[in-house]
Amino acid sequence: MADTSGSVGVVAPFVLEFNDPLELSGGDVLPGFELIVETYGELNDNASNAVLICHALSGNHHAAGYHQPDDRKPGWWDSMIGPGKPIDTSRLYVVSLNNLGGCDGSTGPRSVNPETGKPYGASFPQVRVSDWVRVQKLAAERLGISRWAAVIGGSLGGMQALQWSVDYPDWVEHCVILAAAPDLTAQNIAFNEIARNAITSDPDWHDGDYLEQSANPDRGLALARMVGHLTYMSAEGLSDRFGRSLLDPENDNPEHALFQVESYLRYQGGQFSSRFDANTYLLMTRALDHFDIAHGFDGDLSLALAGTRAAFLVISFSSDWRFSPARSEEIVDALIANGRSVTYANIDSNAGHDGFLLDIPHYRRLFSAWMSRVAA
Amino acid sequence: MADTSGSVGVVAPFVLEFNDPLELSGGDVLPGFELIVETYGELNDNASNAVLICHALSGNHHAAGYHQPDDRKPGWWDSMIGPGKPIDTSRLYVVSLNNLGGCDGSTGPRSVNPETGKPYGASFPQVRVSDWVRVQKLAAERLGISRWAAVIGGSLGGMQALQWSVDYPDWVEHCVILAAAPDLTAQNIAFNEIARNAITSDPDWHDGDYLEQSANPDRGLALARMVGHLTYMSAEGLSDRFGRSLLDPENDNPEHALFQVESYLRYQGGQFSSRFDANTYLLMTRALDHFDIAHGFDGDLSLALAGTRAAFLVISFSSDWRFSPARSEEIVDALIANGRSVTYANIDSNAGHDGFLLDIPHYRRLFSAWMSRVAA
Repeated sequence: MADTSGSVGVVAPFVLEFNDPLELSGGDVLPGFELIVETYGELNDNASNAVLICHALSGNHHAAGYHQPDDRKPGWWDSMIGPGKPIDTSRLYVVSLNNLGGCDGSTGPRSVNPETGKPYGASFPQVRVSDWVRVQKLAAERLGISRWAAVIGGSLGGMQALQWSVDYPDWVEHCVILAAAPDLTAQNIAFNEIARNAITSDPDWHDGDYLEQSANPDRGLALARMVGHLTYMSAEGLSDRFGRSLLDPENDNPEHALFQVESYLRYQGGQFSSRFDANTYLLMTRALDHFDIAHGFDGDLSLALAGTRAAFLVISFSSDWRFSPARSEEIVDALIANGRSVTYANIDSNAGHDGFLLDIPHYRRLFSAWMSRVAA
Repeated sequence: MADTSGSVGVVAPFVLEFNDPLELSGGDVLPGFELIVETYGELNDNASNAVLICHALSGNHHAAGYHQPDDRKPGWWDSMIGPGKPIDTSRLYVVSLNNLGGCDGSTGPRSVNPETGKPYGASFPQVRVSDWVRVQKLAAERLGISRWAAVIGGSLGGMQALQWSVDYPDWVEHCVILAAAPDLTAQNIAFNEIARNAITSDPDWHDGDYLEQSANPDRGLALARMVGHLTYMSAEGLSDRFGRSLLDPENDNPEHALFQVESYLRYQGGQFSSRFDANTYLLMTRALDHFDIAHGFDGDLSLALAGTRAAFLVISFSSDWRFSPARSEEIVDALIANGRSVTYANIDSNAGHDGFLLDIPHYRRLFSAWMSRVAA
């Protein structure tokens, strides 16, 4: 049985049904949708202690605790969520949901389109970050929440937190933006394009309707994940962990020898393709590429953030080359220009972009101290 | 007609045949082989002005000039090779060949195995950097050369130049190592592994015997090139060149809109897969991964370079994150520790690893000044 000290323990996700049609920002309309949600802690009487966790590209609603007592691993952010942890469930009510278009229980490409009786597949409409935020607000209202004590996210989740602070400033008391950026660079987009190309080049892709063919673009999805995973790690971190070690030091014939880092990446790719949906991967990467918080403000980030009212915690990670510290500093500078309260730290770490998911002591202490002011 | 001022003009490659069996460092034996070669300038009477150009992963023998007067583009390093250029053909005799295992005319996976009458394909033996150097020496001897005034290469070509200085110190008077490294990092290897996986995941791969199936793993090879090409460029360079510009600014629907950088990468991938051989790509990347100049010296780079006798020019490029300046500095430090003559410069450029192929003024001036001492 899993050790549940400091843990939220065994949790059960639940589903929220929304039966009204939802018009997305791109103009497409979903006839209705479901969101799968987990909550940790108790909502207080005046609903002033609710905290929203926004997940990144491959995340989901299962952020903390265990679904079964003998689960091998807890939720993806269990290091930071639980009693006594930075996101302290002994006094905060934490809401975590799988975004629309996801593949872990919320309505997405794997879901059946009620109008055709077949899975949406490639026909699932493109969703933007602003759509996720609007849908998260619908979920909050359903849960009796009318204001977040904090909205928190890393990477693509940090973009959602930022979007929340812009779109619904009265809703967001505190905003935590980890390892994020105001938009993607050309290099970021290029890596995403390679990942998408890997998926759509797979003969089992079937123009996105692989489910109807009882197929799955496993190899393409694995390749896409290998590209992504590699860019989440730093060169230093990879050298420290793997160096040039061979899987089998006795076999150094270049034709057959595998370096440990090769074996590691292959494993990560294989694991991912067995759990994730290829259409969701495309949808999420396109949402990332097209996110641009300053769009509609003539590219002026300071102007884009002028209407925000939250207090902000912005954290970057020194070796993150996917969303470099300089990108976080752009956000910080724009917030300061608007007179917002901002705490910023660049955490010294060789973990790359993945740093925000890890339990790095300095990061944890800072995050914990700052969060102690939330709904205090 | 192409402008040939400062150019070596129209050149004709020729083929050297080697009929003796060649045992490779891995133990495989080739019954014989051919090398395709170009030379520019004239060998002087005492053969003291010969310079060898070593090509990188996707390069070949056609380094300068034109094959036909109306060729749209000259050889891959025409900016640096020609009368009055840094590698000055008015006084140097330049030798450039396609390496063994290549796909541009030297014996490689596309060649017919005389023992089977079929293309070697996947059965072509793995070649190491030290094999290339040994074969280049055979070519030199055939051309009447017994010592190089200079051996010059960038990237994988720089590794060959370094290997030359270690394996045949009496042969190398000057050695030019551009944008190279003493070995690959885990991150380097990981990117190569992704590229290989893209190729071998293509259904047209046929375990490497695609020629026999009249097929070609175009999509996998294009993907592999996209990964490689992207890592040769810097994030800053990509942002400066493409930013977040859309191919068609009128169409910003994330489901269909293409960013310019996506279109560029796709084009590069497509061009490459129509000219390059997939087995050669695998062979070249494996040679890169397994190159380790300090292997056999307990990983001690200083010890590995103790026997060198050349004067060295080492150049790195500030935004090269594939072979970072720090890797060049490792080579420089080890050469200095051995009392070698070394000139080192880190060229300020946003061109990334590709910098060594470009005509960057400071780089060109330095290279030209240093080369004026060669065979002077």
